[in-house]
Amino acid sequence: MTIEGGEFGVIADLLAPLAADGAFDLTDDAALLPELPPGQGWVVTKDAMIAGVHFLPDDPPDLIARKLLRVNLSDLAAMGAVPVGYLLATAWTAETDRDWISRFVAGLAADQATYGIGLYGGDTVSTPGPLGLSLTALGTAARDGLLRRNGAQPGDDIYVSGTLGDAALGLRLLQGDLAVEPEHAAFLSRRYRLPEPRCALGPALVGIATAAQDISDGLLADLGHIARQSGVGAEIHLELLPLSVAAREALVERPDLAQLPLHGGDDYELVFTAAPENRDRISAAARQSGTAVSRIGRILAGETVQALAAGRPLPARKTGWQHF
Amino acid sequence: MTIEGGEFGVIADLLAPLAADGAFDLTDDAALLPELPPGQGWVVTKDAMIAGVHFLPDDPPDLIARKLLRVNLSDLAAMGAVPVGYLLATAWTAETDRDWISRFVAGLAADQATYGIGLYGGDTVSTPGPLGLSLTALGTAARDGLLRRNGAQPGDDIYVSGTLGDAALGLRLLQGDLAVEPEHAAFLSRRYRLPEPRCALGPALVGIATAAQDISDGLLADLGHIARQSGVGAEIHLELLPLSVAAREALVERPDLAQLPLHGGDDYELVFTAAPENRDRISAAARQSGTAVSRIGRILAGETVQALAAGRPLPARKTGWQHF
Repeated sequence: MTIEGGEFGVIADLLAPLAADGAFDLTDDAALLPELPPGQGWVVTKDAMIAGVHFLPDDPPDLIARKLLRVNLSDLAAMGAVPVGYLLATAWTAETDRDWISRFVAGLAADQATYGIGLYGGDTVSTPGPLGLSLTALGTAARDGLLRRNGAQPGDDIYVSGTLGDAALGLRLLQGDLAVEPEHAAFLSRRYRLPEPRCALGPALVGIATAAQDISDGLLADLGHIARQSGVGAEIHLELLPLSVAAREALVERPDLAQLPLHGGDDYELVFTAAPENRDRISAAARQSGTAVSRIGRILAGETVQALAAGRPLPARKTGWQHF
Repeated sequence: MTIEGGEFGVIADLLAPLAADGAFDLTDDAALLPELPPGQGWVVTKDAMIAGVHFLPDDPPDLIARKLLRVNLSDLAAMGAVPVGYLLATAWTAETDRDWISRFVAGLAADQATYGIGLYGGDTVSTPGPLGLSLTALGTAARDGLLRRNGAQPGDDIYVSGTLGDAALGLRLLQGDLAVEPEHAAFLSRRYRLPEPRCALGPALVGIATAAQDISDGLLADLGHIARQSGVGAEIHLELLPLSVAAREALVERPDLAQLPLHGGDDYELVFTAAPENRDRISAAARQSGTAVSRIGRILAGETVQALAAGRPLPARKTGWQHF
């Protein structure tokens, strides 16, 4: 990378304005996180993304930045945590110029405003390989109120937020493997490039949901994690999966993709479980957080996670989570 | 990467045993950090390393892991923080096999025991480029006791821990650009591959040192950060720099490298400042932490960071910190 001002120029000019209180304008070796009220704890998570693997190299830099941030905020939301800040490591290539970085930073700034968070530090290095990014997100939650994966009970309802399959369709579209109406194309590609982490819904589910996680590898795979950690099985109905109008129309044209909402990744919606007597409280949490929530099935005894279409079991298939 | 068991196999088999309390055996989306006593705060830092840039691709995997961890612990030490844990992101290549990862994990396990820390989560991805790593270190410090870079005052003494230049000599040795006695070779290459973060000294300097930072880019460059942040100048004496026997003998053979202890990077020692009336307290902190400490110069008014040899200013040269 050859950037005017070098690493320290980039940090001082572009990144320092993003610094949170306690990050000392990024001038020091580390940052101090704010003090929490009694009973609150820090929740931490970290995800990495590689150009060509987790995003398309020619995706707009601001959207790459925002996706990186949002996939991590989605993990916090799945635990019921409220985001506070993040640390960022970037490995830039010889082609990464200051303009690219400026647009990347503009994306971070936009989402810092959206989510009310700040930058607590990180590192900038160069790489001869593809551009690589990693981000550590820091959030807070009541120490005794974390949403976990291991609390689902037979008889619990299964819910998902938002709509499923949009991002997987958007990726196919961006790769030239799908054609839809222009307005649907814009919607679906945006759903791939810019997830909507459920930062309001997650914390609203604390004390109600028995298990939760975000959907990054595909609904069945991620529901499988809940089932495995909880020692239960699950049954969901394809017809109950919430689909956007764009996805619905795309799938009418392409019936071969009908199961994409079950297996396609990158949804960054929440899948969670709750006892049937809490249906009203789930509805209230959805309303309160301005997030659509759909009931899609129920938790069973056993260890099989089964999807049904028209009441008949779909053939079991390899779930999507071996993503090396 | 083709690893038996895939990503989840690696996490469950190799990484889960490293998990700290609060990391839920790495089964969930995020981890909960432990509660701190009143007045203590979390200190966070993040560094990335790329094969071929920050370490040699054929370095032993356990030492790569330990260096990654230790360069981050060095940042915590520079702030006076005590390490507690870390998050890890790894981007493995097609050549990274399970044996390599096992040895990498063994290095993490060894240093977890050395420093009394645990793993709080992270991510494993694949990359078509060089192996890439990033680590977020989490430590604790008294909220009002952080060591910063901006507190140096004219008249303060300047100190460094340990010895300087060993790692830079070790790198030249490993690259075939230097020849020394075998026992010195082992020492110098180890100093490059396995830094000794000053985790005991850093916290012992709280309330005594007026400024501190770790030396990763070279003494003059990093002392330059302290000078810039504090709005002061500095003067150090080449003859006062602490050198190992191995470095001393290497530099006798190679007078062209005499200034390497000023500019060579990767020392991961601390450079810090303190008022002259605190010399006894600095000695006590050094003894208490079992760390050698040397006084090498003093802080001046102005903004020039000057090294002197035999009392005469060395020619000013570009400091080593533009390391893209």
